Amino acid sequence: MTDRLVLHEYASSGNCYKVRLTAACVGAHLERREYDIAKGDTRTPHFLTNVNANGRIPVLQVGDRFIPESNAACYFLADGTNLIPTDPFDHADMLRWMFWEQYSHEPNIATLRFWMRFLGPDNLTDVQRIQMPAKRKAGNEALKLMDDHLAGREWFVASTMSLADIVLFAYTHLAGEADFNLGQYPRVQQWIDRIKGQPRYLAMDA
Amino acid sequence: MTDRLVLHEYASSGNCYKVRLTAACVGAHLERREYDIAKGDTRTPHFLTNVNANGRIPVLQVGDRFIPESNAACYFLADGTNLIPTDPFDHADMLRWMFWEQYSHEPNIATLRFWMRFLGPDNLTDVQRIQMPAKRKAGNEALKLMDDHLAGREWFVASTMSLADIVLFAYTHLAGEADFNLGQYPRVQQWIDRIKGQPRYLAMDA
Repeated sequence: MTDRLVLHEYASSGNCYKVRLTAACVGAHLERREYDIAKGDTRTPHFLTNVNANGRIPVLQVGDRFIPESNAACYFLADGTNLIPTDPFDHADMLRWMFWEQYSHEPNIATLRFWMRFLGPDNLTDVQRIQMPAKRKAGNEALKLMDDHLAGREWFVASTMSLADIVLFAYTHLAGEADFNLGQYPRVQQWIDRIKGQPRYLAMDA
Repeated sequence: MTDRLVLHEYASSGNCYKVRLTAACVGAHLERREYDIAKGDTRTPHFLTNVNANGRIPVLQVGDRFIPESNAACYFLADGTNLIPTDPFDHADMLRWMFWEQYSHEPNIATLRFWMRFLGPDNLTDVQRIQMPAKRKAGNEALKLMDDHLAGREWFVASTMSLADIVLFAYTHLAGEADFNLGQYPRVQQWIDRIKGQPRYLAMDA
């Protein structure tokens, strides 16, 4: 990989952190460019035209080209490494967890964290407030599904750590910030500790 | 591919259709097993234990193993075919559109279609009803993003049809059923016709 890699990000976002964690695990160097999403830095005409028309971070810049969507950026960094299974079933199973993360985990756990910690409970709109119980329920269902899946397993896919573990780790290890009680999910807690014990582990605030 | 392939599905779901369309495009034979989601067929103990603990369809059965998440199932079927770019950037770009589809397109366009056509406007909960304007807005933003991206291009990634086009096609070509006006997005309409004109195209009701 000879192209310069720049991560366009907001450091407190779990979706951005997962790209940094993937880079650390594969030994890739990322330049970092910070945007303040609260100030609308990712909705400027310049950002929308030159970085991501969808107005979101993270975006991984590869030379003069751009990859939005956190899990796609992670895949690009890990492509060809042992974080990506080569067996076709295991590979699809990894993608299954990555799509599940974006559909059934992030919109509940990450969104509640954002609403509660970044917007603040007193600043929510009615539309946000009325969705909270359903997101709380779905977030706990997601954590329970993970806990059940980890029965008798160390990793989500096959028998080694894969990109599925990294992308799931990001918002799972922050679930306490959204007032989820990880103590209810002991296998998830053990798996979190397992990832933190990896030689190339990078903490979110590193 | 020698394993028997069974699609556990609900035929009117665009997420299930995209798996059938992928299979048609790569010449794979799928057995089909229908579940009535309105009757809770995918929440039975048997389904949760043996097919998908997440209680959702589609699930692609490969021999005696299972792949939930529509886009992961599509990838498994198309793995090694020319629907999946081999260039690492193009491959990540394809995944970018597939993740975007599940995060920014499906929860708006497919959900509104489900609420309006399957549940019915008179049967929605307050939580659903209050979300409708935001989903309408986000759905139109998704269609506009697609229309803008298609300026000067025939396909979403690189210069040939890829899995990104197939997974985006499923709910986009059904957007009228959620009262989106595809006439406002002429390049999207042309791209829909381009996919319908492919030799191996399979209609949703085929």
